[in-house]
Amino acid sequence: MTTFGPLFVPRELLDVVSGRAWLEAMLEFESALARAEAQVGIVPSEAVAAISERCDPGLYDFDDLLERGRAVGSPPEPLVRALREKVGGDAAGYVHWGATSQDVMDTASMLVARGALDLVLVELEGVTASLARLAEAHRSTPMAARTMLQQALPTTFGLKAAGWLVAVLESRGILGAVRERLAVQFGGAAGTLAAVGEHGPAILRLLAEDLGLAEPVLPWHTNRVRIAELGAALATTSGVLAKIALDVVLLAQTEVDEAREEIGGGSSTLPHKHNPIESTLARACARLVDGYASVLATGLEQEHERAAGAWHAEWEALSGALAYTGGAAHAVGQAVGSLQVDGERMQRNLGATDGLVLAERVSFALATRYGRAESHDIVREAASRVAASGRSLADELREDERVGLSDSELDALLDPATYLGSAEAFVDRALDLYHSEGT
Amino acid sequence: MTTFGPLFVPRELLDVVSGRAWLEAMLEFESALARAEAQVGIVPSEAVAAISERCDPGLYDFDDLLERGRAVGSPPEPLVRALREKVGGDAAGYVHWGATSQDVMDTASMLVARGALDLVLVELEGVTASLARLAEAHRSTPMAARTMLQQALPTTFGLKAAGWLVAVLESRGILGAVRERLAVQFGGAAGTLAAVGEHGPAILRLLAEDLGLAEPVLPWHTNRVRIAELGAALATTSGVLAKIALDVVLLAQTEVDEAREEIGGGSSTLPHKHNPIESTLARACARLVDGYASVLATGLEQEHERAAGAWHAEWEALSGALAYTGGAAHAVGQAVGSLQVDGERMQRNLGATDGLVLAERVSFALATRYGRAESHDIVREAASRVAASGRSLADELREDERVGLSDSELDALLDPATYLGSAEAFVDRALDLYHSEGT
Amino acid sequence: MTTFGPLFVPRELLDVVSGRAWLEAMLEFESALARAEAQVGIVPSEAVAAISERCDPGLYDFDDLLERGRAVGSPPEPLVRALREKVGGDAAGYVHWGATSQDVMDTASMLVARGALDLVLVELEGVTASLARLAEAHRSTPMAARTMLQQALPTTFGLKAAGWLVAVLESRGILGAVRERLAVQFGGAAGTLAAVGEHGPAILRLLAEDLGLAEPVLPWHTNRVRIAELGAALATTSGVLAKIALDVVLLAQTEVDEAREEIGGGSSTLPHKHNPIESTLARACARLVDGYASVLATGLEQEHERAAGAWHAEWEALSGALAYTGGAAHAVGQAVGSLQVDGERMQRNLGATDGLVLAERVSFALATRYGRAESHDIVREAASRVAASGRSLADELREDERVGLSDSELDALLDPATYLGSAEAFVDRALDLYHSEGT
Amino acid sequence: MTTFGPLFVPRELLDVVSGRAWLEAMLEFESALARAEAQVGIVPSEAVAAISERCDPGLYDFDDLLERGRAVGSPPEPLVRALREKVGGDAAGYVHWGATSQDVMDTASMLVARGALDLVLVELEGVTASLARLAEAHRSTPMAARTMLQQALPTTFGLKAAGWLVAVLESRGILGAVRERLAVQFGGAAGTLAAVGEHGPAILRLLAEDLGLAEPVLPWHTNRVRIAELGAALATTSGVLAKIALDVVLLAQTEVDEAREEIGGGSSTLPHKHNPIESTLARACARLVDGYASVLATGLEQEHERAAGAWHAEWEALSGALAYTGGAAHAVGQAVGSLQVDGERMQRNLGATDGLVLAERVSFALATRYGRAESHDIVREAASRVAASGRSLADELREDERVGLSDSELDALLDPATYLGSAEAFVDRALDLYHSEGT
Repeated sequence: MTTFGPLFVPRELLDVVSGRAWLEAMLEFESALARAEAQVGIVPSEAVAAISERCDPGLYDFDDLLERGRAVGSPPEPLVRALREKVGGDAAGYVHWGATSQDVMDTASMLVARGALDLVLVELEGVTASLARLAEAHRSTPMAARTMLQQALPTTFGLKAAGWLVAVLESRGILGAVRERLAVQFGGAAGTLAAVGEHGPAILRLLAEDLGLAEPVLPWHTNRVRIAELGAALATTSGVLAKIALDVVLLAQTEVDEAREEIGGGSSTLPHKHNPIESTLARACARLVDGYASVLATGLEQEHERAAGAWHAEWEALSGALAYTGGAAHAVGQAVGSLQVDGERMQRNLGATDGLVLAERVSFALATRYGRAESHDIVREAASRVAASGRSLADELREDERVGLSDSELDALLDPATYLGSAEAFVDRALDLYHSEGT
Repeated sequence: MTTFGPLFVPRELLDVVSGRAWLEAMLEFESALARAEAQVGIVPSEAVAAISERCDPGLYDFDDLLERGRAVGSPPEPLVRALREKVGGDAAGYVHWGATSQDVMDTASMLVARGALDLVLVELEGVTASLARLAEAHRSTPMAARTMLQQALPTTFGLKAAGWLVAVLESRGILGAVRERLAVQFGGAAGTLAAVGEHGPAILRLLAEDLGLAEPVLPWHTNRVRIAELGAALATTSGVLAKIALDVVLLAQTEVDEAREEIGGGSSTLPHKHNPIESTLARACARLVDGYASVLATGLEQEHERAAGAWHAEWEALSGALAYTGGAAHAVGQAVGSLQVDGERMQRNLGATDGLVLAERVSFALATRYGRAESHDIVREAASRVAASGRSLADELREDERVGLSDSELDALLDPATYLGSAEAFVDRALDLYHSEGT
Repeated sequence: MTTFGPLFVPRELLDVVSGRAWLEAMLEFESALARAEAQVGIVPSEAVAAISERCDPGLYDFDDLLERGRAVGSPPEPLVRALREKVGGDAAGYVHWGATSQDVMDTASMLVARGALDLVLVELEGVTASLARLAEAHRSTPMAARTMLQQALPTTFGLKAAGWLVAVLESRGILGAVRERLAVQFGGAAGTLAAVGEHGPAILRLLAEDLGLAEPVLPWHTNRVRIAELGAALATTSGVLAKIALDVVLLAQTEVDEAREEIGGGSSTLPHKHNPIESTLARACARLVDGYASVLATGLEQEHERAAGAWHAEWEALSGALAYTGGAAHAVGQAVGSLQVDGERMQRNLGATDGLVLAERVSFALATRYGRAESHDIVREAASRVAASGRSLADELREDERVGLSDSELDALLDPATYLGSAEAFVDRALDLYHSEGT
Repeated sequence: MTTFGPLFVPRELLDVVSGRAWLEAMLEFESALARAEAQVGIVPSEAVAAISERCDPGLYDFDDLLERGRAVGSPPEPLVRALREKVGGDAAGYVHWGATSQDVMDTASMLVARGALDLVLVELEGVTASLARLAEAHRSTPMAARTMLQQALPTTFGLKAAGWLVAVLESRGILGAVRERLAVQFGGAAGTLAAVGEHGPAILRLLAEDLGLAEPVLPWHTNRVRIAELGAALATTSGVLAKIALDVVLLAQTEVDEAREEIGGGSSTLPHKHNPIESTLARACARLVDGYASVLATGLEQEHERAAGAWHAEWEALSGALAYTGGAAHAVGQAVGSLQVDGERMQRNLGATDGLVLAERVSFALATRYGRAESHDIVREAASRVAASGRSLADELREDERVGLSDSELDALLDPATYLGSAEAFVDRALDLYHSEGT
C-alpha cells in the first residue's frame, strides 16, 4: 500500500499488489515447485503435503520478512528459512530445492501482475461499456471539434466517444497480449538449473502448467523484456485514460459546460463549483504510472546473470504501475459512467463563432464555381468582416455579390447537423470493433 | 540529422529519418491522396498526373519549409502551398483535397517509421545471426555465471549468448508487430472527413492500400496508442541491446578479460587499452532512445481533436528514437560480430575462488547423506576456512572427516564442466526458436 | 542541428549548439591549454602561437571528425590528430599535452552551455519584460480565477501575469546559478594529471581563468552533478514556460477568448481559427527538454574514472536541452509579447455563473450574523436554486428572508472588482522582485 | 509506507513521510493559521486554544480521510470537517478561515519535506564522514584508474574516495539550498486571499515565521518551481550515491576484489559469495527516485490557478522521492562505513597488464629525447609485443635499443606509486572543502 493509495485506487486493487499478495504469490511458487519436483521424482511425495500446508500466507509477516531480508537484499531468503522451520523434519530439506531467490520473486511478480491485470481489465470493461453507450446515444449529437482548443468544424459527441473507445480497446488489446506472456521463472542460482540435474526443462514446464503461466524459452533473470513490455502497456493504457479524462475536464469548464461528471466534485467553500474530480484523479494516476513505467523501461540493462539494483527496483515500480493504472481505469469508469452530456449546450457553443465554424463548407461549396483559391478568398474576407462587425457569417456572405446563395441555401450550408461527413459511419465502425471483441 | 548523430548512427539510418525523408514521405501522402480521390471521383484523373509529377522532394527545401511553417506550427501548410503553386492551373485546386496538416504529418511519420524499422530489423538480423553463432560455438564453453557481479556457479558462454539471443528475438517480435500496425492517417480538419462527403471510408481504405499501411478503424489524430507503442518497442529493443553491451563491457574489463571487441577501441595515449567502443556507443544510444521514448510515452494525453504541443513534440522524438535504436543495433552488431571469446581465460577465472564456485554442488552431493541443513553447514565451514587459509576448497574438504570423498570423487565434483545443468539444453531451445523464426 | 529544429528554435540558438560550435569550443580548449602550459613552463612559448593559429574551426569538418571518431568513441582524438598535423614541427608534440579526450569534450560542453545559456537568458529577459508590462497594465483587470478549470473566484489578470513572472524569475535565478558553476575540465587520462608532474593544479587554475569558467575542486570526469543540475535547471525553466503557454492556450479557447497571440496562427482551411501557435510550440519544446533532461538526470551513475556510455549520451542530450529551452523561451516571448488581452470578455465571462463566482463572499458576509455553518447553508441553497431556475444568485438571495440585504448591498457584494483581496498587493510584490533583480 | 519500503528505507525515514506525518503536518498548518489570524484580529483568541487542542493527529485516521477525500479529490476537506466537528461551538467557524485545501496540502508537503530532508542530511553526514576517512587513509594507496572499465593509469584509492566525497558535498549543498526555499502556502481559493480582506500578506508572513518556512513572494498554487527543484535535487543526490554504489559493486567483483562491504551479503545457497547488498539497494533506491522525480519534473505545467491532476500526483511522488533518497543515503552510508579496502590487491591488480598501465609515463619520458610522435611509436611497438609475447613491458623495452634506459631507471618509471601526479594534492583539496563546510 502506498501513502496516498486509498485516495486514488480501489481497495481491492491495492490489496492485490499489497505485501500480503506478494507473500501469497511467493508461497504459491514454493508449493508449486514442490509439486513439480515431486512429479519428476526429486521431492518425496510425503514432503509435498508438508510443504504445501505451510505455504499459508497467514503464517508469515511480510514487513518482518522485508526487514530481515535487508541483509540479503530480498525477501525470499528469510521466507524460505521461515518456511523450512515451520515444515521441519526431512521435508524441510526439500523446500525451495534448486531454486534461487529471483525465481521466487519473479514468479511472484508475474502472479501479482496477473491478479492486478485481471482487475484492471474488469475496470476497462466498465469503461468500454460506458463509452459504447455514449457513442451510440450521441452518434448524431453535433458538437464542435476542437483543434488546438479552437473550434474547427462540427463533429458529433458520438464520434468523440468512439475515438475514446477505440483507444481503450487498442490499449486493452496490448494489455491482454502482455498478460498472455507472463511467464514462470525458474533458473536456479546461475540460470542453468544445475541443482536439479537433467530435470530442469521438465520442472519448468510443470511449474508453468501448475501456475497457469507461460513457459519461457529460457530462464529470464536478466532478460527483462516482459517486465518492460508490461510497464509500457500499463503506461499506454493509463495514458489513453488520461486523454479521456483531459477531454472531460475541458468539456466541463465553466465556459464550455458540455459535459459533467455526476458524482462528487462539490466544493465546500465554493458551492457553485462542479469539479471533475474523477477525471482529475485519473490524470494524476497516469502521471504516477509514467514514473513507475520509466523505472521499468530503463531497467532492461541488467548485469550478467543477476543485476545489482535494476532488478530490485522493479518490485515497487511494478506494484505502483499496476495499482495506479487500475486507479486511472476506475476513475475514468466513474467519470464516463456518470457523464451528463448537454447536447443543447453543444449546439449553442457551435454558434459561438457566428457561423465561422462552417466556413470551410461554404468555401468548398463555392469552389465548384470559382475554383478553390478564389472561393477561399471570398470566405476569408467574409470571415474577417465577422470579427470586425460582430455580425454573423451568413450576414456577411449575403453582402458579397459573388456568393449568390439564397437564404435557404445559406441556412442549409451553415447547419452543423448536416456537415458531419463520416462521423456517424465512423461511430459504427468503432461499435463494430467493440462488439466484435466481445464486451 | 542530429548534432552527434554521425558518431553513433550509420549514415543510411540517419538518412531515412532526415528532413529529406520526411519531405519525401509527405509528398508520397499527397500523391497517393490524389490517386485515391480520383478513384472515388473527387479528383479528375488529369489532375492526378499533374500533382504526382510535382510530388518530387528534389523540388522543395525542408529547412525552408520548417521556417515558413513556424507561423502555422507545422511544415505541411507551406509545403501544400508550394505544391499548389508548382502544379498550377485547375489541378492546383485538387491538391491536398479534404486533408489536414496532421493527416500529412502523421502518415509521413508512419512511412518514415517503416523505412527506419526496416533498417533496424536488418541490423537486428545481423545481431541475431552473430549471437546464434556464438551460442552454438560456445554451447559447452564453461564460464562463471555472475550474480550481483560475484561469481556464483558455472554456466556456459553459449547460454549467455543464448540469453542475449532470446531477448533480441523477443524485442524483434514486438517491433515487427508494431510495424504491422503502422496506419495511414486521414481524417480532415475535424476527423469527420466532411469535405469528401460520403467518400471518407473509401478513400481511407484506398490510401492505406496504396501506401501499404494499415487502415485504422478511425482517424487517430489524438489516439496516439500506435505512437506510444512504437516508442516503447524501440526503447525495449535498445534496452535489450544495452544489456548485451553492458555484459560485453564487463567481460572486457582488464581483470576479467574473457571477451573483447576486435575492432576499434585503441587509445592514442594509452597504447595497452582495448576499449569496448561499440558496446559503449550502444549503451549511449539506448539512453538517448529512453529519453525520446519518454516523450512519446507521456504524449498520449492530447486535447480534443488536435493537441496543442504534445503532437508537435513527437516528430523529433520519433526521428531520434528510430535513429538511435538503429545506432544501438548497429553497434551491438559490430561488437558481437567481432567478439573474441577467450575460453581459456574463462576457465582460469572459474578457478579464482579456489573451487568455491562449485560449493553448491558439493553441498547438494552431501545432502543425500546428511540432509540439506548439515551438508550446508559442512560446506560453509570449509568455505570459510578457504578464505582464511588461502588453500583450495578441495584441500579444506579433504580435512573434514565428515566429507569422506575420494580425491577422484572430489575432483569430479569440483569440475565446472560437469556442473552445467541444462545450460546446453537451454542453448538448443534458444537456437530452435531462432531457426523457427526464419533468418 | 536537429531534424525539426528550425521549426522550434531560433537559428541563432541552433547555431550555438551546432557541430561547428562544439568544434570551436574544443579548439578553444586546446589553445587555452597551450597558453596555460606555457605559463608553467611545459610548452615552449613559440609552440603556443603555432598551436593557437591552427585552432581555427574553419580548418576542420565536424561531421568528418564524428565519422573518424567512431573508432575511438569520441571526436577529440581525430581532432587532436588533425590539429597536430596542421601544426607540424616540434610544436605538434605539445598539442593536447597531458590532456585526455574527456577534458576536451567536457570543457567544450561547458563553453557550449555558456553560449547557449546566454541566449536563453536574453530570451527570458524578453519574457519577463513582457510579463511585467502585462502585470502592471492589468493589475486591476478582474477575471475569473479557475481551479480545476472551473471558475472559482475573481482574480486579476495582473496577478495571473505576476504569477507567471515570479516563476520565470525563479527559474532564471536557478539557471543563472548553474551558469556560475560551469567549470573547466582537466584531469588527464586518469584524473591525476600525472603527465604534467606537479603542475596540475596550477594549469587547472590558469585554464579556468583563461576560459572564464569556474575552477573545480577536482577533475569531475565521473562526478556529473553539474551536468545533471544543468539539465534539471533547463527542464524547470522550460516547464515554467510550458505552464504559461498552457494558460495562454486555455485563455485563447473559442469559448473563453480572453487572450490571444497576435502573430501567426492562421489556418488555411479554417479561416476563422486563431491558433495559439507560439504557445503550442513552447509546450512541444518543453516536452523535448524533459526527454533530454531525463537522459542527463539518469546519467549520474558513471563507472569508475570514465563511463562506458552514460558520458557519451550527454552530448546530444545537452545540445537538445539547451536548444529547446531556448525555443520554449523564444516562443513564450512571442506569445506574451504579442498577447491581446480582452478585459471586457473577462468581465463578461465572470458573469457566466450568474453571480455564483461571488458566492463565497456572500457566505462570509452572512457569517457574522449566522455563523459560518448556517451562512454557508443559506448560500448553498440559493446556489442550487440558481442552477435549477436559471435566475441569478442576486435574485435567489433576494427571495430568502434570512439574507436581508438591500439591493445595493447585494450589488456591492456581487461586484467582482471589489473582491480581489490582495491581488493588487501581490502584483506589486512581484514587480518589486522583478525590478530588484534588474531587468 | 510503500509495499517494499521497509526493505530499502530506514523505518524512521518511512515514518516521516507516512500518512501519519502528512496528517500531523496538515494539522500543524491549521493551528498555525488560527494563531496567525488571531494576531491580525480575525480569529478570537479563545478560538485559537480550542482549535489548537484538536489539532492532534491522534484524533484522526489518515486512511479514512483519504477514502472520504476521494469525493473532493484531496484529504484536507474531510479533515477540516472533522476538525470543525471536534472543535464545536463558535470556534468551529474559525477553523481553516480563508484557506483552501491546497494551502493545507502544499504547506504540509513542505513540512514533510523538511522533516525528511533533515534525516537525509544526517545520513549524508555519515556518508561524507566515512568518505573523508577513506580519502585520508588511502591518500597514497595506489590503484588502477579505470576508464571504460579498462585499466588506464595509476591513481590512489584516496582520490577515488575524494571524488565521491566532492560529489556528495555538492549534492548536499544543492539539497541544503532547496531546503531553505521550502515555503509556506497560503492563497485561499483563488490565490487572492480575498476572504481575509487586507490581511493576506500579514498572515502569510506570520504563518511563515510560525512554521519556520520561507515566505513566498506570491501564493504558488500553480508555480511549482520549488517542487520540481526539490525533486531534481533528490534525483541528483541519489544519482551521486548510485555512482558510489556502482563503483563499490565493480570493486567487489570476484575478479577485482579490491573492496568489499563488511556487512550482510551472505548467500544461503552459495556460501562463498559476498554480495555488495547495500550498494545494490542504493542503486535500486536511486532508480525509484528517478521515477518519482520525473513525475515532479514533468508536473510544472499546471492549469490556471489549480491543476486538475498534475498537483495531485505530487504527493505520492514527493513522499517516494524523499524516502528512497534517504534509503540510498543510508545504504551507501552502510557500504562505505564498513568498506574493507584491500590495498595489496590493488597493487597486485596494477600488475595485471605487465607494466602497460605505465606505458604513458615511459612515452612521456622518451618524448624529451625523440619528440612525442616517435616516443609514442616506440612504446606502442613494445606494448604490442607484450600482448604477443606474454612478457612484461620492462622486458620488451629493454629489447629496444632506442629506449636506452638502465634497469633502475626502468624500474623507477614503471613504479605506479611514483606516477600519481596530483592525486594526493587533489585529495587534500577535497578534504579542505569537506572541513570548510563543517562536518
